[in-house]
Amino acid sequence: MKKQWLLILVGSLLVLTSCMNKANEPKAKYVFLFIGDGMGISQVYSTELYLASLNGNRQTNNLNMSKFPVQSYMTTYSSNSWITCSSASGTAMASGFKTNNGVLGKDSTLTINFESIAEKAKLAGYKVGILSSVGINHATPASFYAHQNSRGMYYDIAMELPVSNFDFFGGGGFITPKGKGENQPDAYENAEKSGYTYIHSKESIQNIKKGSEKVLAVNPFLLSKAEFAWEIDNAKESISLAEFTRKGIELIDNPKGFFMMIEGGKIDWACHANDGAASVKEVLAFDMAVAEALQFYKMHPDETLIIVTADHETGGMIIGNENEPNLGLLMNQNVSAQEFGRLLVNVQQTNPKATFEQIMELVQQHFGLGSDSKGLALSAMEIAMLKKAFDETFDGSKGLDPDKEYLDISANKTIPDVAVYLLNHKAGISWASNDHSATEVPVRVIGPGQQYFTAPIDNTDIPKIIAKLMGL
Amino acid sequence: MKKQWLLILVGSLLVLTSCMNKANEPKAKYVFLFIGDGMGISQVYSTELYLASLNGNRQTNNLNMSKFPVQSYMTTYSSNSWITCSSASGTAMASGFKTNNGVLGKDSTLTINFESIAEKAKLAGYKVGILSSVGINHATPASFYAHQNSRGMYYDIAMELPVSNFDFFGGGGFITPKGKGENQPDAYENAEKSGYTYIHSKESIQNIKKGSEKVLAVNPFLLSKAEFAWEIDNAKESISLAEFTRKGIELIDNPKGFFMMIEGGKIDWACHANDGAASVKEVLAFDMAVAEALQFYKMHPDETLIIVTADHETGGMIIGNENEPNLGLLMNQNVSAQEFGRLLVNVQQTNPKATFEQIMELVQQHFGLGSDSKGLALSAMEIAMLKKAFDETFDGSKGLDPDKEYLDISANKTIPDVAVYLLNHKAGISWASNDHSATEVPVRVIGPGQQYFTAPIDNTDIPKIIAKLMGL
Repeated sequence: MKKQWLLILVGSLLVLTSCMNKANEPKAKYVFLFIGDGMGISQVYSTELYLASLNGNRQTNNLNMSKFPVQSYMTTYSSNSWITCSSASGTAMASGFKTNNGVLGKDSTLTINFESIAEKAKLAGYKVGILSSVGINHATPASFYAHQNSRGMYYDIAMELPVSNFDFFGGGGFITPKGKGENQPDAYENAEKSGYTYIHSKESIQNIKKGSEKVLAVNPFLLSKAEFAWEIDNAKESISLAEFTRKGIELIDNPKGFFMMIEGGKIDWACHANDGAASVKEVLAFDMAVAEALQFYKMHPDETLIIVTADHETGGMIIGNENEPNLGLLMNQNVSAQEFGRLLVNVQQTNPKATFEQIMELVQQHFGLGSDSKGLALSAMEIAMLKKAFDETFDGSKGLDPDKEYLDISANKTIPDVAVYLLNHKAGISWASNDHSATEVPVRVIGPGQQYFTAPIDNTDIPKIIAKLMGL
Repeated sequence: MKKQWLLILVGSLLVLTSCMNKANEPKAKYVFLFIGDGMGISQVYSTELYLASLNGNRQTNNLNMSKFPVQSYMTTYSSNSWITCSSASGTAMASGFKTNNGVLGKDSTLTINFESIAEKAKLAGYKVGILSSVGINHATPASFYAHQNSRGMYYDIAMELPVSNFDFFGGGGFITPKGKGENQPDAYENAEKSGYTYIHSKESIQNIKKGSEKVLAVNPFLLSKAEFAWEIDNAKESISLAEFTRKGIELIDNPKGFFMMIEGGKIDWACHANDGAASVKEVLAFDMAVAEALQFYKMHPDETLIIVTADHETGGMIIGNENEPNLGLLMNQNVSAQEFGRLLVNVQQTNPKATFEQIMELVQQHFGLGSDSKGLALSAMEIAMLKKAFDETFDGSKGLDPDKEYLDISANKTIPDVAVYLLNHKAGISWASNDHSATEVPVRVIGPGQQYFTAPIDNTDIPKIIAKLMGL
């Protein structure tokens, strides 16, 4: 009988030990780090309310990332400010170290290069993929492979990319691939010389097969030759971030495992412009990329960790003003503020004598503003705001550059800016500024190690936790 | 040998079952539900940044509630709006059912009374305590014991309080205890007739002992005879929410267990006034009440559940504008906007010819504004804003009522309002409105059942989860 009790004890201990081991040392072989640039809590919630409005209900967890079992917050401040920039926060999430705003992959004295979690993973034999919907040498993706004194050193960053030896780069292209003066050796050619297969047609990207080594796959349809078109502008020729994610998974999936960082880069840009409808569409596209990772998770649930977070919040977005929130009104906007700027420049060039009434027709056509039936009637004061912008920026001698003035906006100066403000206001969205805020950002996690994310973390904790889980 | 394996199996199953039972059915005998009225994510974070500034570091988890192991979000919308009011959200958190804004403890057709978690707990033999720093018949506390068509029916709510038979009511007094016309039977006397011990002196509250049944303990130092003074006004005569919490625990602690709801009611009011410094001080006082519950938790960690959440966010607070956030600047404010209004009314009455310069001295004295050495120099435009408010509201014939105009503010109309705006702006705080927002609120949890709070919940989930954990 004594022996039997002993056996029961042994059995108990075996189960307990195995349980405890499992609980204490979860292992993540496949790690996805999704970074929604500028995606604060309100950017996600506004998208949920938009979907709820489309569905005619009050269900607020329609996004893939909203169904994750663990969701908490993250602080994002940098070494020299409570309000971080993308390179300081990217560096923190890549290396586990804070640095000053503007610095990339280095410490604030610019003397130490930080090793990123992607570099560590690569060294340990994992495959690595870096994806972004904006320039692949922009701050967030660059944080994972580059080390430069300034995030603005795009050419140096581009030239540093092949040094990483990472297995897959996908999405946006190089910003200034030949340097600012366009007179330096081409960064794409440099990548090819370093052994990268550089592909940039829809066909070649779709056809590239598993087993291809070191791929740089750039969307053939880009704005400013570097970043994806706005989702709201519905560029059918573009390859989506979700498609790049699926392709990336196909290419770097291997028995040893992988680390993949996927950035939704234009949520931030939409919010710099206080363009709520554009933000919602960018979040939706980002969430479709998350869906691809979830598909993979379902095949390897015990070994796949997905983290969806942000580098900072942009715009100080809040759902709440004197109007009842009705995010469905954003449906009436069918163009980004930037693209509407282009359209106005076009009109200005072809029909410089265009009247305010003609411009108002365009405003109604692209934003629904002025339409009673859409619930978007304009008050005299609101029309006066548009008229002021028209007088100052359309009728005047100054031709506005949509790639600058329409994104780098100051309070309600241009017609697209006022149109976006009015539609956002009627939908119930307020904005605090055109810049980043200090507010905490959401962290949503599924997979082994999710228990490390039940309480708020700092952005420097991200690579530390991943390293622990990947055994780096 | 076969038998031995069977025994190992039995042993394993025993441990597994016991583990699973423990994991699946945690029991909470003592439940604290803390509701910070209007306390969104930014209200907490601004307080953290204020403490970090005082401490001269960037540590952002100095609050008791910030150290909780599980922290996620909660949606708060009501039956008829994405932006809830306190009674609709209070009703949801008390009963598990949504209702329309303005309704209290009933459905939106006003025909069904919802049973609250506090009523259920009382029926099941638990002791119940309801505490608030504002009127004890105000929306949030009332949601747990009253059922009225409108939250504004303060007298009917006050008369309904004793019907609950709850064991302890503490904090604020009754709003309009004799009805609006002050001609109805006194609600305090009614409570006494129903067997409540009504105490309202510091001494009687401090001296009341465990074993006393049905206590209504009202702070002797109240504004408008109902709510606590502002923390920032430093009313030493007042009994703090933390002291009431400690006393409440002492009185209702018993072997069967208890449910206690504690509201920090004036965070909301500070944020309606966009008064960041007042909000920070209210959050700090609220957190001191949380500390009392944590003390209790430490004695009964396996049986005590503490939930700290909010009914909604107020003001659309964001930390981020063109200034580097420096919440420490709020230290220079030593008076609430409301109390500063009182002070100005006083000056107006004693010295109606007071000059703008004299008023500016007061502004500097109470907000630091205009002081170079404090980093609060004023620009010509900022001085002009104060001058405008002075011309329109001080110098004019209209005597402003600090209990109304200084809280029910419209954009930058009064001197206190402008002073608060300027200080907040310099500290890096932006506000979207003077009303509630739709944004999700924080939920911070420690204790058995905390695993139910790792992902966002709806406010209706709160009583459902508590009921499950308390076996109701």
